[in-house]
Amino acid sequence: MKINKYVNGRVRLISREEESVEATSQTFQEISPADFFYRNKEIAGFANPARAIFSAIRELVENSLDATEPMGILPDIYIRLSPLDEGENTYTLMVRDNGSGIPADYVPLAFCQFLFSSKYKLKQSRGTFGLGGTMTILYGQITTNKPVKVISSTGETKINEYTLMIDIERNRPIILNRKLYDNYRKWHGTIVEVNLEGDYYKAMPKILEYLKQTAIVNPYANITFVDPKGRLYKFERTVVTLPPKPKETLPHPHGIDVETMYRIIRATRCEKLIDFMQKHFHRVGERTAQRFLKFAGFPEDADPKKLKPDEIVKLVQAMKNFDEFLPPDASCLSPLGEEILKAGILKELEPEFIAVSQRKPSSYSGHPFIVEVGIAYGGKIPVKEDILLYRFANKIPLVYDESGDVSWKIVKSINWRKYGLMPNMPFAILVHICSTKIPWKTVGKEMIADRPEVSREILNGIREVARQLEIYLSRKERIKREKARLSVFAKYLPKIAEFSTKLAGKEKIPDINDLLRRAKKIEED
Amino acid sequence: MKINKYVNGRVRLISREEESVEATSQTFQEISPADFFYRNKEIAGFANPARAIFSAIRELVENSLDATEPMGILPDIYIRLSPLDEGENTYTLMVRDNGSGIPADYVPLAFCQFLFSSKYKLKQSRGTFGLGGTMTILYGQITTNKPVKVISSTGETKINEYTLMIDIERNRPIILNRKLYDNYRKWHGTIVEVNLEGDYYKAMPKILEYLKQTAIVNPYANITFVDPKGRLYKFERTVVTLPPKPKETLPHPHGIDVETMYRIIRATRCEKLIDFMQKHFHRVGERTAQRFLKFAGFPEDADPKKLKPDEIVKLVQAMKNFDEFLPPDASCLSPLGEEILKAGILKELEPEFIAVSQRKPSSYSGHPFIVEVGIAYGGKIPVKEDILLYRFANKIPLVYDESGDVSWKIVKSINWRKYGLMPNMPFAILVHICSTKIPWKTVGKEMIADRPEVSREILNGIREVARQLEIYLSRKERIKREKARLSVFAKYLPKIAEFSTKLAGKEKIPDINDLLRRAKKIEED
Repeated sequence: MKINKYVNGRVRLISREEESVEATSQTFQEISPADFFYRNKEIAGFANPARAIFSAIRELVENSLDATEPMGILPDIYIRLSPLDEGENTYTLMVRDNGSGIPADYVPLAFCQFLFSSKYKLKQSRGTFGLGGTMTILYGQITTNKPVKVISSTGETKINEYTLMIDIERNRPIILNRKLYDNYRKWHGTIVEVNLEGDYYKAMPKILEYLKQTAIVNPYANITFVDPKGRLYKFERTVVTLPPKPKETLPHPHGIDVETMYRIIRATRCEKLIDFMQKHFHRVGERTAQRFLKFAGFPEDADPKKLKPDEIVKLVQAMKNFDEFLPPDASCLSPLGEEILKAGILKELEPEFIAVSQRKPSSYSGHPFIVEVGIAYGGKIPVKEDILLYRFANKIPLVYDESGDVSWKIVKSINWRKYGLMPNMPFAILVHICSTKIPWKTVGKEMIADRPEVSREILNGIREVARQLEIYLSRKERIKREKARLSVFAKYLPKIAEFSTKLAGKEKIPDINDLLRRAKKIEED
Repeated sequence: MKINKYVNGRVRLISREEESVEATSQTFQEISPADFFYRNKEIAGFANPARAIFSAIRELVENSLDATEPMGILPDIYIRLSPLDEGENTYTLMVRDNGSGIPADYVPLAFCQFLFSSKYKLKQSRGTFGLGGTMTILYGQITTNKPVKVISSTGETKINEYTLMIDIERNRPIILNRKLYDNYRKWHGTIVEVNLEGDYYKAMPKILEYLKQTAIVNPYANITFVDPKGRLYKFERTVVTLPPKPKETLPHPHGIDVETMYRIIRATRCEKLIDFMQKHFHRVGERTAQRFLKFAGFPEDADPKKLKPDEIVKLVQAMKNFDEFLPPDASCLSPLGEEILKAGILKELEPEFIAVSQRKPSSYSGHPFIVEVGIAYGGKIPVKEDILLYRFANKIPLVYDESGDVSWKIVKSINWRKYGLMPNMPFAILVHICSTKIPWKTVGKEMIADRPEVSREILNGIREVARQLEIYLSRKERIKREKARLSVFAKYLPKIAEFSTKLAGKEKIPDINDLLRRAKKIEED
């Protein structure tokens, strides 16, 4: 344990024990990223045993989805939670997938070192902080002191089995054991088996809700869950086509800061700004590059590597202020699409009415995003005191901390009476945001921040589908009224016909069915 | 730029540029803590220019308060925000305090290296993540590319002036310049001057609200703010006594996990468990230690350094399950106290009624905490559609993200009509939580998580003061009715007296003032 401490103008190493005894005014300390997240596990979704077991399942399932769908593999995910020590609230969690697997050398680092990940990319993915798996293993270790077992293969000749722990103070994996197996059947995928403390029964409703909603927005996945009592929950795939793969993109010029610019300049092989602009930035073609450089006041053949610090700042400022760059292209995103959205809602809520809308791609700070919304009415939708809102981000359902989320804020701000709706009517709203960078408020990925560009799209999307529901409801109301009117017709018309016939001195009562049919027809037009 | 990449089973270094060109299935990358927070600055409160300038001021002011009050120094804090480049939304932010100062060798690390801090302690302080100052400097650097200037002295012979930047990819300070000045006047304190992009005019209401509320709960501080237009805001101290210094405490046995136990065992010099328990844990005396070791099944003279891994787990489990440990002692906390709370509310809201309550100390997961609540009615309190809530944590006002906070959830769950209150009446609630560990939801420190132990105290505290307000309001209502009755009396009694006198054939009208006085007196009892 190394703690640097200032004594008489010198730095020396002291033990924590010593530190707790002395009462100095300020002692400074350097901690590792693992230690930081160990001390602050609440901010990553591991605040208490119930929340922790939820987050553990969620993080491993999302890693599995990220290792399958974007690689063109139909996900088969098997989750088993079994009691470890009866009466101690400890469990063994096993998650197995058929994903692309992790290269042997990377297994220890990917699972047992913080800030080491494959997820630091400009690409739509469920994971973005690259912390979830490691955080789960850390939590398991500090609550049970047991190692994690990771089995993985990329489909080549060998399967690797690692038994690992985390050296939290040093942020390094400890390899306790490694085994190699022949991979005769070319299996690829990853199995993680972690022991952890948890309160499953308290978290159960949220876990099942999470899995159910995950199945809704990932209908191409098979998800199986065996709970500690051995109960089996099976969510079978309903479609066998995968959405288009999300692509990695170049950064958009509007989102560039000085640091990113330095990094790109250090790495570039371009010798002229005109090439540099086209090669490293999103949607910059030759003509845009020419116009921009003119606007910024840089010669086209200036060498990016020879720019002075203040010139770099000037270039970055010009990028922010130049308004002729094309908006980010959302073709790199992988939204659900109206079909899947509709199918998911229909399967889950069996509503009598449904409307969905995919908004046009938009962007904030250079990050493209797409908002998809749905509204459903009637059927199995429960009547609640408050509005029923389903939230998704990059195909992750968000089931905690609703009230801090941008969608909730917008849903609450809408005057629903305008659309003939009241909170105690059976309707539900669904909002899905996908982006290369979701503006998360927390590392625990439960709340999305209120970016004006994003909230505008959510609001307009909800308004659009709400209007459709309004039309449906008012037509329904009209039909109901007409039906009532027709039933009055149907009741009295025969009597009137009979009476009129008598009055006219005729004998044959005219056929009123034709009359009724015509009345109905007029109403239905 | 080092990126480890897996190619043919080998790790090699590639440049980011190369990476963006290749389309590999999974590339792994290690990033520094600085790089992590650079990529995810939103989660630390730097989501956009308005929020960033708010957070920058807040973080530096809180560092200044933490460098003064806990050291027994009456805070004098001077904040100046001045335009850097007109029209570019860039500012120079200067914050100066009279705090204990930072030892010379530590200045670069404390300000320009992430996860290096004096704040990783079991102690009530405003800062807990140790990120705020460094995050502010990082944000300034990436938006303006300018270095930060830090001037500091601990009151010894020299004053140090550093010009610094952050090497974000390596998480290291870059010292551009260092100057030494003689410190003839034994000045101690710190001056930070940072340049950053910001949207001051959008953030202004929140910044002024933050400073005003900071002044309320830190009435022993002088805070001066000069805004970019040169307007001066002065919050002068109203008391000259400081609250008791928060003390650093030992960890409580209920909050211990395996990792902490390992760390303590590695550092201890105790050779017997009976001594070990008393020396390293909060509120464990000899008798408690004896009873606990008996309960846990360990001999009193067992050597802690010789415990096997499964014995350590057993010891930790026993610590969680032993229910005879004394609850955490809150004497290490520094709450506001009912006087300061009352004075602050009175000064700010000038209400006609006020009630405050400091709850008894309580604890969650071994962390002591105290909840203080206040309710105010009338006076300058505005009538709002929603309830007016002031939130504080360890003497920090929280002005963003109210709806995600535990206090807001509780305030909304209360049936206010029961207390004769409705949202459109002029009343305000104030909640202050202080703890050695505030259960923050985010690194940006705006929302407190919903821990059952904490919410119970908030709820009970609010109920208590709400009942007092209820009594006040119903008495007020009764007095109003009585006044109305008395004014009827006062109006008709002379007439009745006159009439009765005539009727009785008497001449002298009796003195009714005595009668009125007696009626009033009865009502006032």
